[in-house]
Amino acid sequence: MEKTFEELKTRLNAIHDVRVSRAILGWDQHTKMPPKGAEVRAEALSTLDRISHELFVDDEIGRLLEELGAYEESLDRDSNEASLLRVTRRDYEKAKRVPSDLRAEMTRAGAIALPAWVEAREKSDFSIFLPYLERNVELQHEYIACFDGMGYETAYDVLLDDFDEGMTAETVRGVFDELKRELVPLIAEIQENADRVDDSSLHGEFPIEAQRDFALQVVERFGFDHESWRLDPTVHPFAMSAGVNDIRLTTRYDETDLSSSLFATIHEFGHGFYEAGVDPSTERTALSSVTSMSLHESQSRMWENLVGRGLPMWRFFFPKIQEAFPAQFGDVDLDVFYGAINKVQPSLIRVEADEATYNLHIILRFELEQEMLSGDLALADLPEAWNARMSEYLGIDVPDDSRGVLQDIHWSGGAIGYFPTYALGNVISVQLWDQLRAAIPDLDSQFEQGEFGELAGWLRENLHRHGRKYNSKEMLERITGGGMDPGPYLRYLREKLGQIYGLSVKEGAPA
Amino acid sequence: MEKTFEELKTRLNAIHDVRVSRAILGWDQHTKMPPKGAEVRAEALSTLDRISHELFVDDEIGRLLEELGAYEESLDRDSNEASLLRVTRRDYEKAKRVPSDLRAEMTRAGAIALPAWVEAREKSDFSIFLPYLERNVELQHEYIACFDGMGYETAYDVLLDDFDEGMTAETVRGVFDELKRELVPLIAEIQENADRVDDSSLHGEFPIEAQRDFALQVVERFGFDHESWRLDPTVHPFAMSAGVNDIRLTTRYDETDLSSSLFATIHEFGHGFYEAGVDPSTERTALSSVTSMSLHESQSRMWENLVGRGLPMWRFFFPKIQEAFPAQFGDVDLDVFYGAINKVQPSLIRVEADEATYNLHIILRFELEQEMLSGDLALADLPEAWNARMSEYLGIDVPDDSRGVLQDIHWSGGAIGYFPTYALGNVISVQLWDQLRAAIPDLDSQFEQGEFGELAGWLRENLHRHGRKYNSKEMLERITGGGMDPGPYLRYLREKLGQIYGLSVKEGAPA
Repeated sequence: MEKTFEELKTRLNAIHDVRVSRAILGWDQHTKMPPKGAEVRAEALSTLDRISHELFVDDEIGRLLEELGAYEESLDRDSNEASLLRVTRRDYEKAKRVPSDLRAEMTRAGAIALPAWVEAREKSDFSIFLPYLERNVELQHEYIACFDGMGYETAYDVLLDDFDEGMTAETVRGVFDELKRELVPLIAEIQENADRVDDSSLHGEFPIEAQRDFALQVVERFGFDHESWRLDPTVHPFAMSAGVNDIRLTTRYDETDLSSSLFATIHEFGHGFYEAGVDPSTERTALSSVTSMSLHESQSRMWENLVGRGLPMWRFFFPKIQEAFPAQFGDVDLDVFYGAINKVQPSLIRVEADEATYNLHIILRFELEQEMLSGDLALADLPEAWNARMSEYLGIDVPDDSRGVLQDIHWSGGAIGYFPTYALGNVISVQLWDQLRAAIPDLDSQFEQGEFGELAGWLRENLHRHGRKYNSKEMLERITGGGMDPGPYLRYLREKLGQIYGLSVKEGAPA
Repeated sequence: MEKTFEELKTRLNAIHDVRVSRAILGWDQHTKMPPKGAEVRAEALSTLDRISHELFVDDEIGRLLEELGAYEESLDRDSNEASLLRVTRRDYEKAKRVPSDLRAEMTRAGAIALPAWVEAREKSDFSIFLPYLERNVELQHEYIACFDGMGYETAYDVLLDDFDEGMTAETVRGVFDELKRELVPLIAEIQENADRVDDSSLHGEFPIEAQRDFALQVVERFGFDHESWRLDPTVHPFAMSAGVNDIRLTTRYDETDLSSSLFATIHEFGHGFYEAGVDPSTERTALSSVTSMSLHESQSRMWENLVGRGLPMWRFFFPKIQEAFPAQFGDVDLDVFYGAINKVQPSLIRVEADEATYNLHIILRFELEQEMLSGDLALADLPEAWNARMSEYLGIDVPDDSRGVLQDIHWSGGAIGYFPTYALGNVISVQLWDQLRAAIPDLDSQFEQGEFGELAGWLRENLHRHGRKYNSKEMLERITGGGMDPGPYLRYLREKLGQIYGLSVKEGAPA
C-alpha cells in the first residue's frame, strides 16, 4: 500500500511542479515580462494549465485513489498521508468534471484579458475591457455548468467553493448583512467626528527607494528573509509562493502617499508568511497550498491591520519612520500618526480603504458579482451599477472607471467569487486574534520591543503548518471551538475606532 | 494531410510552450529566485523537462511523422512546413533514444549543481563543486551511451551534435589547430609592442546605474526595444528568449571596469537579436529556436567584436560615453579608447578576454573536455590541468580556482561540448561579415552615423528569419557558397591588431 501511495505521490509531485511553474510564469507576467510578451505567455500559461489538469484527471489517479481507500481509512485522519488522500480525492472529483479544453481556454482568456484590463484602466475606458469580461463570464457559466447535480444551491456557490471549500452565498450574505447593519451607522458616527484625525503627514513626498527600504525594515522584523523572499513592484499587489523557501511579494508605490505601498507590503507579507509556514514535508503536494482564501486573507488582514495599524508595533517603528522621512514625520506625534493610519473615510479604492469602509467595498462587489452571474445585470451596465452603489453605500461619486469598476485585477483573470474572502478574512482574523492574545498575554509589550517571534510561532503552530489540511470551517472550530462570527470583529472595530474618534462606548466591548 | 499536419503542430506547440516555460524558470533561477528556492526549483525544472520529453517521444508523434512522410516530400524543402517536419523527425529520432528518467535526472543534477558551483566559485574551493561535476559527467556518459550505433565517431561528437548539428571533434580540431598555429605567434608579436596600447581609462569608477544606462543607449540603437526586451544583472551573462517579443539579456557589473558589462551586454544582444528575428509564423515550434550554437555565437561575437569593438561605431558613441563618464574619458582621444577596448593581453577570464587570446581559452576547454570524457583526466585533477595549460598557452599563472577552472557556469549545468561553438562562432562571424560588407559597401559610414538598420536588415533577411531551418553548414553554404574557413577571421585579426599595434603587414590581408 505504501508503494501505491508513493506512486500516487510521485504523480502529484509532478502536477504540483507544473502548477508551481505556472505560478512563476504568472508572477513573471505581472512583474518582469516585456509587455509584448503577453500573447505568447497566454499560450504558455494555458498549456501548463491544460497539462496539469490532464495529468490530474488521468484515470490512473482515480485508480490509485480507489486502491488507497482502505489505506486512507487505516490512517489517522489528521496525518499528512490521510489528509493528502482526502484533499486529492475531493479535487479529483471536481476536476474530473471540467474538460481540459475549457480549463485551458479559461486560462488563455484570462491571460489575454490582462493587457486589455491594464489598457482600459490606464485610459479609464471600460469598453476596452468589456468584451474580455464578457468572455470570462461566459466561460464561468460553462464552468459552473460542469457541476450540475453536485448539490450546489446557486451558481455563485460553485465559484465560492473554489476559494473557500464549503462556503455558500447564503452564509456570506448572513455575515455581510450583519457587517452592513453595524458598519453603516458606525461610519456615519465617525464622519461626524472626522476632524479628530489628521492624516496630512501621510501625504507629501516619499521617494520610492526610501518607501521600499522602510517597508523591508518592517517585514524583515516580521520574518521576511532575503534568502527565501523577494519584494517587487507591480500594478496590483499580490503574493506568490513557489515553495516554503521561494516567497514573492509585490507592492505598488505612490510617491505622494506612503501608506499605499507600506500596508500593501505588510498585507502581502501576511499571505507569504502563511505559505512559508506550511510543514516542509508537504512540499510539492496540494497540502502545501492553502486554498481557503478566507483563511489566507485572515492572515494578510491580520498583519496589515491588527499588527500593522496597531499602536504597539508603532511604539517600536515610529522613531524609525521618523528617521526615514524626517521632513514628513519629524514634528508629528505618535498619536497623530496612529490616528492617521487608521483614518476612516469613504474612498474610491478598495486596497487603500480603511478597516471600516473596506467591507462595504467587498459587499458591493459580492452583490454585483451575483447579479452579473444571474444575468440581472448586463455587463455593459456594470460601471453604472458600480457607481450607483458606491454612492449608496459610501456616499461618494466615482469620477472615472479607472478608479471605479476597473480598479481590481480579479475579473480580468476570470476570478469571480474571490472578493468575499477578503471580508470573511477580516472577520476570521479577529476571532483568531482573540485566541492568540489569550495565549500570549504580553503580546503588546513584545510588539513595543519589535518582537514578533511569539506571534509568528503561535500562527505557525496553530494555523500555518497545517497548510491545506483543514478547511476554514474545520480550522476555526479547532482554534476557537466555534464557527464564523462577525461579533469579535465588530467589537474590535468599535473599540479601536471609538477610542481614536472619541465615540461613546457601546456595550459588548471586548474583554 | 493538412489536418494531420495541424494535429502534429498542435502537439509541437504545447511541447514548445513547456520548453519556453522551462526557459523562463531558468532565467528566473539565475536572475530573480531567492537563493534557498534552488532545491524546489530543481524539481520543477526537472519535471518540465521530463514532461516535454515524454510529450515529444509519444508514439503518436512518431505515427504522425510517418503518416506525413509523403506530404513532406510533396512540399518545397525550404518551406516552413517541410522544414518543421525535417527538424522534428531528426529531434524525434534522437529523443526516442533517451529515457525520460535520464533526461529528468540530468536537469535535476544540473539545477542542484548550480548553487554548489556558485558557492565553490565564491569560496574558490573546487572540492565543493567536484561531486556535482562528477555526477554531471557520469550522466553525460549515460546520455552518450544512448546513441551507440548511430555512427558517431567519438563520444564527444555526440555532445557536439546537440550544439551544432553534424559538427565533429575532428573538424573542430582542424580549425583550432590552424587558429593555434597563427594566434600564438601573433599574440607574442603583439606582446612585444604592448606599450602601444593604454587601457587605463577603462579602469576606474563606473557607477553601475550609469553603466546600465550607457549599455542600454547602445543596444537601443542596435534594436533593443523595452516593449519586447529586458536587461538584468546576473552572475554569468546569458540571453533567453521566450518568443520573438520576449527577449531577455543579462549582464554582470564591475564598478571598477566598464568593458566587462558593456561588451557582455552587446554580446548577449547579438544572441537576443537572432531569436527576435526568426519568422514570427514559426513561433511556438522548434523552427523558432536556433540550435546551432556556432551560428548563434557568430551573431553574439559579431555584434560584440566586429561592431562593438570597431572604430566606426565609436565615432558615433565615443562622445556619448565621454558624456556618460566625463572623469574617465573627458581627456581621452578616440584612438586611445579604440586601442584600449582592443587591447590584447593574456588574462584569466574567458568572457573578458580580448579577441585574439579568447580562442586559446576555448581551445584549452575543448581539450580538457575531451580528456574529461575519455577518462584520461581524473576530474579531481582538473584544476591542476587547467592551470598548467593556462601557463602553457597564455603564459599566466592562475592564482585561484575561482578565476580558473570555476569561472564558467557551463559544466555546472552539464553542458559539455558547448565551448567550441564560441570560437567557431568567431570564425563564422567574419565569413558572414565579409559577405555583408560586400553587400553594403558604406557600412562604416552608416555606423559612424549611429545607423545599424541596414546591418540588422541584412542579418534578418539572410540569417535570422530562417531560425532553425538550416544547420550551420547549410547556412554557410547558402551565404558564402563554401564551408567553414578560419582564413578570413585570421586575416581580420591580423589586420585590425596589426594596425593598432603597428605590426608588419603579412601577405594575405583582406581585400
